[in-house]
Amino acid sequence: MRQSKLFTKTIKENPKDEVSINAQLLIRAGFIDKLTAGVYSYLPLGLRVLKKIQNIVREEMNKIDGQEILMPALTPKEIWETTKRWDEIDVLFKMDGSGGKEYALGSTHEEVVTPLVKKFVKSYKDLPVAVYQVQDKFRNEPRAKSGLLRGREFNMKDLYSFHKDEKDFEDYYEKSKQAYLNIFERCGLEAKVVEASGGVFSKFSHEFQVFTEYGEDIVFSCTKCDHHQNQEIVEQASEQKCKTCGGKLEKNKAIEVGNIFPLKTKFTDAFKFKYLDKDGKEKPVLMGCYGVGPSRVMGSIVEIHNDENGMIWPEAVAPFKVHLISLCKDGDIKKADKLYEDLTEAGVEVLYDDRDGVRAGEKFSDSDLIGIPNRVVISSKTLESDSVEIKERVSGKENMIKIKDLKF
Amino acid sequence: MRQSKLFTKTIKENPKDEVSINAQLLIRAGFIDKLTAGVYSYLPLGLRVLKKIQNIVREEMNKIDGQEILMPALTPKEIWETTKRWDEIDVLFKMDGSGGKEYALGSTHEEVVTPLVKKFVKSYKDLPVAVYQVQDKFRNEPRAKSGLLRGREFNMKDLYSFHKDEKDFEDYYEKSKQAYLNIFERCGLEAKVVEASGGVFSKFSHEFQVFTEYGEDIVFSCTKCDHHQNQEIVEQASEQKCKTCGGKLEKNKAIEVGNIFPLKTKFTDAFKFKYLDKDGKEKPVLMGCYGVGPSRVMGSIVEIHNDENGMIWPEAVAPFKVHLISLCKDGDIKKADKLYEDLTEAGVEVLYDDRDGVRAGEKFSDSDLIGIPNRVVISSKTLESDSVEIKERVSGKENMIKIKDLKF
Repeated sequence: MRQSKLFTKTIKENPKDEVSINAQLLIRAGFIDKLTAGVYSYLPLGLRVLKKIQNIVREEMNKIDGQEILMPALTPKEIWETTKRWDEIDVLFKMDGSGGKEYALGSTHEEVVTPLVKKFVKSYKDLPVAVYQVQDKFRNEPRAKSGLLRGREFNMKDLYSFHKDEKDFEDYYEKSKQAYLNIFERCGLEAKVVEASGGVFSKFSHEFQVFTEYGEDIVFSCTKCDHHQNQEIVEQASEQKCKTCGGKLEKNKAIEVGNIFPLKTKFTDAFKFKYLDKDGKEKPVLMGCYGVGPSRVMGSIVEIHNDENGMIWPEAVAPFKVHLISLCKDGDIKKADKLYEDLTEAGVEVLYDDRDGVRAGEKFSDSDLIGIPNRVVISSKTLESDSVEIKERVSGKENMIKIKDLKF
Repeated sequence: MRQSKLFTKTIKENPKDEVSINAQLLIRAGFIDKLTAGVYSYLPLGLRVLKKIQNIVREEMNKIDGQEILMPALTPKEIWETTKRWDEIDVLFKMDGSGGKEYALGSTHEEVVTPLVKKFVKSYKDLPVAVYQVQDKFRNEPRAKSGLLRGREFNMKDLYSFHKDEKDFEDYYEKSKQAYLNIFERCGLEAKVVEASGGVFSKFSHEFQVFTEYGEDIVFSCTKCDHHQNQEIVEQASEQKCKTCGGKLEKNKAIEVGNIFPLKTKFTDAFKFKYLDKDGKEKPVLMGCYGVGPSRVMGSIVEIHNDENGMIWPEAVAPFKVHLISLCKDGDIKKADKLYEDLTEAGVEVLYDDRDGVRAGEKFSDSDLIGIPNRVVISSKTLESDSVEIKERVSGKENMIKIKDLKF
């Protein structure tokens, strides 16, 4: 894409009403725009990142047999009454509709997905089923000051799985753990599996936490083995030591980027969702839910990968692979145009800074702020040796390379 | 995709609470599920169709220099007060949030996009700008009984363009007309451009209407030329004849599938969005909006393309290109599996009816209902001549063809 056509521009000053690094950098670089507290628009560069994260999530969900669906955000009161959560979930946005109908905006979708899947599952032959969606969710958060980390409207991937017995459920739950670790690794995040409380129906659930001093969560990690527990679990325990190896616990700050939860029969009971087993008997369906927020992952990546000059996108989620910066004048502009076209034709995603009348220094600082992994500078000077200068955003390493040898 | 893994199943009876053909067929075939009046979930087959329509729309919007963004559904009261539409739009869903904050769910996005684009446009050099999004919108409809044609939550592509003068605006408006006609043609819909009222700021706007006896709109068409006007325009006119050629007018029922609207300075004035022209003077920005609803297009396609046995998807928006139906038994099952794998590997989208224990007649009627353009039957009998039987859904034409000669 030609940067001269991009309607957004970078902003020099940090926005005054944002305290989080992710919101500050994403707004300054023109990736997102704040509409009101906890509510953001995704601008062209930001939407490209969000979509890349969503697609990584989709690929990993498809690998564990997730079938993609799309449920509504607008949900009728009745389904929330069935599970008694109309009053229980304090962050539910509620609305009056025409004809005296009441609605809530989905903050989670167990109430929609359980009766939906029930319609198609009668016998053990129809199980297991795993469905997921990528969709915006809504929470009436009292505080929303962490940028993309805690939104009132935020993007979510939620998968729900349905099983005929404990064994089948447990197997899937373990597979989902690995799928989640794959997602975070592909997004450039080192996430730890953390034991968390499981509610009434299950001893434990699991969170995926990325350690950073800017995190809002506290995780207790064993200093000897790789076992991690959240604060709630540790505070409930009689002794504050690792339950796996007895090692000493260490406190870490972290951002929660995902969680998986054994719901067992909590919702299937409420919706009377049973199946007919081989032996002709009606049995309860076991359920799990698995959540990861692509918008929150996007914010987390920025919190982790930045320096004093701006963002540093991991290649798999970067808005573009190459930031081609032209400092060419007059007749050489055509050569820069040709390099842009050749790279694009070769399938390389290029943001081409073809802006006229913008100083080199400004182009470089914009490029650092936007954080595309590979910066390629073409100028009348580099063209003297038929070359360009490549700089890796993450390491700062610079190299001259012949144009004919360029490869991405 | 293997049909044995698809969690949805077809339903024999028409749903009792649906009167529209599109909702009846889409629900029976397992493309959508009704959560409550005017609110539907998209199931795997339906979501594939919706995404294909969305991508056709994206391609045509990108061609007219639209930059994709994504705005929130949750919008603060203030922006609607700026344009005095908080009370004016009667279908706005309104909510109370924490801290006494009030919100509306976006039924349209002029109030979000205008101040957003204003932040980045200072001078004539920054214009024109065209941005669009593909997103769910919400309308508190008193009646919602037309399936995907009139939802309380529905999918929408809305593009907004911003210009420095009338000429630039008019040129873009005409380009958008053609882009819209391309969209509908690619989706298998024959849409007519229909003159409609333009409100205070412009004499006319334009609707895109598909003629069908099941439509809710009335269009007056000239019997001599290709001029069409909506009911409002005709009723306001002194004479009921074609204003282009004087020809007689004919009444048609139609479904509105899109509309484009010259907003001129209606919203840019409200948000004080001006630009600095070449001559150093502040001038008003002219604006247009352009809407097409992918979910409504999906419903319209079903209304138009169906027969007594089910839906008939145009290839560009079909959930799959080929419905491969195996009637094979025992050793021949492997041959059907291999054909499925070969086609998939060749990049053909195949729904593979590999279901065990389902009669041929049931497989055929499911296939007709689902409406994939090409049905390919493989059985022990067709394999005797190393062949399959191909049936075109739209024409019903059947042919035997050697497997090695199969091409899609």
